[in-house]
Amino acid sequence: MDQSTLALTQFVPRPGIIDLGWGHPDPELLPVKGLREASARVLNRYGSDALAYGSPAGPGPLIEWLCDRLGEIDARSPNPDSVALSAGNSHALDLLTSLLTAPRDVVLVEGPTYHLAVRILRNHGVRVVAVPTDTHGLQVDALAQTVNAFRRRNHTVRLLYTVPTFHNPTGVSLGDARRKQLVEFAEAERIIILEDDAYRELAYDEPAPPSLWSLARRGTVVRIGTFAKSLAPGLRTGFITSDPALTTRICNWGMFASGGGISHFNSLVVAEFGVTGEYARNVDQLRSAYRERRDALLAALRDHLDARATWLSPAGGYFVWLSLLDARDAAALLPLANAEGMSYMPGTKFFVRSQKGSSSLRLAFSRYPPDELAEAIRRLGRALDR
Amino acid sequence: MDQSTLALTQFVPRPGIIDLGWGHPDPELLPVKGLREASARVLNRYGSDALAYGSPAGPGPLIEWLCDRLGEIDARSPNPDSVALSAGNSHALDLLTSLLTAPRDVVLVEGPTYHLAVRILRNHGVRVVAVPTDTHGLQVDALAQTVNAFRRRNHTVRLLYTVPTFHNPTGVSLGDARRKQLVEFAEAERIIILEDDAYRELAYDEPAPPSLWSLARRGTVVRIGTFAKSLAPGLRTGFITSDPALTTRICNWGMFASGGGISHFNSLVVAEFGVTGEYARNVDQLRSAYRERRDALLAALRDHLDARATWLSPAGGYFVWLSLLDARDAAALLPLANAEGMSYMPGTKFFVRSQKGSSSLRLAFSRYPPDELAEAIRRLGRALDR
Repeated sequence: MDQSTLALTQFVPRPGIIDLGWGHPDPELLPVKGLREASARVLNRYGSDALAYGSPAGPGPLIEWLCDRLGEIDARSPNPDSVALSAGNSHALDLLTSLLTAPRDVVLVEGPTYHLAVRILRNHGVRVVAVPTDTHGLQVDALAQTVNAFRRRNHTVRLLYTVPTFHNPTGVSLGDARRKQLVEFAEAERIIILEDDAYRELAYDEPAPPSLWSLARRGTVVRIGTFAKSLAPGLRTGFITSDPALTTRICNWGMFASGGGISHFNSLVVAEFGVTGEYARNVDQLRSAYRERRDALLAALRDHLDARATWLSPAGGYFVWLSLLDARDAAALLPLANAEGMSYMPGTKFFVRSQKGSSSLRLAFSRYPPDELAEAIRRLGRALDR
Repeated sequence: MDQSTLALTQFVPRPGIIDLGWGHPDPELLPVKGLREASARVLNRYGSDALAYGSPAGPGPLIEWLCDRLGEIDARSPNPDSVALSAGNSHALDLLTSLLTAPRDVVLVEGPTYHLAVRILRNHGVRVVAVPTDTHGLQVDALAQTVNAFRRRNHTVRLLYTVPTFHNPTGVSLGDARRKQLVEFAEAERIIILEDDAYRELAYDEPAPPSLWSLARRGTVVRIGTFAKSLAPGLRTGFITSDPALTTRICNWGMFASGGGISHFNSLVVAEFGVTGEYARNVDQLRSAYRERRDALLAALRDHLDARATWLSPAGGYFVWLSLLDARDAAALLPLANAEGMSYMPGTKFFVRSQKGSSSLRLAFSRYPPDELAEAIRRLGRALDR
């Protein structure tokens, strides 16, 4: 019997290794007691309605509260008829790839991009093509050239998957001017932007920039968001804000028309946590904890990797993107880093063509307290010494 | 603002109508108190592990308990490495259609079949073709002819979707001889059988027949099961039993590799309900309640529709399939039935070619107590009188 089959959680710790490879929250920061009480209150308040087949778009109480919350953390609040709930951003991306693409379509992504998003896209037979980024995010001029080049060769190019805010893996946010440029380009060229907005709540220095969804005309941007980063991934609850026509298509999609909302009970638990104010307090605590961790990681990088690497300072999210100097190969360094007792994700994972990103790596500062992050970077420094 | 957007549940009652159109459980039969306590115990026992990203196949505690349970209610128990958990059968069917078919493949179904399964299949661009059934279920000889006919024309025919046990909509179970014949045919012709086993727990007269999965060689049958009918649909938790190779493919599928198990917290709640024996007691109560309802419905049919319709007596599940005599059109009768205060699902819905089944209809006996079922049939009789 395969041991991994009977695991409980996705992350399985390796003894002696501080693993900055996984973009997971610190278990200590998950509000166990609050959610236990919220679950009980949901079943007291809604009774059997919390356990029945749910409304296909998701239960009204979460949609209503979410619209209010997005009004606070984004530039514009959706109408409830433009919202459908999901089982998290991975499920939403899988669903929307089915809905919005056909096999062999070209789907554009950033280079680098979230590596498992590429796997989800490819599951649906599309051709994934990366567009270069810089320290201000996606290069919109390069995007235009890529679209034109593929369209000239009669490829269907209808979708861009992007993480414009606190990017995974780079931590960068797309600049304001580029946001406008990108939205205008997509509107003019009838490209649908699939905006992965997983990290919006985790803004450490100033409010997150306005979502592409909030800036665009109806139908141009589909934004996917999740409670995995701001509350608890095990609840598998997220949301899709688009427009009434797409929301209707989602509700009529067979999976929802048959089984109802895909996260019914858990959505009510999230709503309960929202309306009582516990969600907002939890996000405040997360921002404070992760800000301290980010700062600790950046300080440790200055202390231990100065003159051996450069890195980007993120204003939110989970990740620091690091580039080794002297073209050091990050994948080759990984076994040495593991031997010293730390781990990370090599940069090549995040590029569609794996020869890119070879001297880069992603560090997640979400899962460990400041002292362990500092120790991990000391160990990385020792690995570089070897 | 669209009212339906802010609904809580999928079923919205229509005043004055006893609605036998929906295959939903009676809210009164959902174990609200037991699940409230099980949720609390899960969060006490597992703490943050219950809220973290879950193991892609689903948490070990539910997989282990499920294997034991299937050993009791089926002819064979899976090994844990052949099980992956789902967000219910609608999600599992969507997932497996993505995994096992390509657009334009022929997918075979029963005529009649579960109508929303057809919608899920078609979402993936496959061509759905129905094979005739009779009172013993799918006609395997007709299946062989259909497969051969399409293959001669160079169509790819790799998948059969079937509900062999307490069929939706007919209530019929495939006979033992046909089960063997079907499995042997699929093995010989390399057809994958996607067995929808949603109703196995709801056997009222004798144990459910052995699943096709239990009878077949590894790799021939993928069985999907759900806790929607035996526990609570709002938990959105089900399972896929196949073989280790397919389980690995599911775990490596982008959606799971990225987000982990799709029903993590709720799976632990189901496991808790299972190991304490509450699940088994709940199923005993459901069998008793639904048996009484089935008998009440059949008695009412004898009392009020004798000589005007024929029907099949199901040994399990949710449904009675009724055929009106004198070629009465069931869709045309529906407004009259609604006016009398009852509803049902017209038979044409369950056929791929909608000119079939016009004098048939599906009655669900799951959602209402015996006296309301009897009243609904009295009203149907009055509608037929008009």
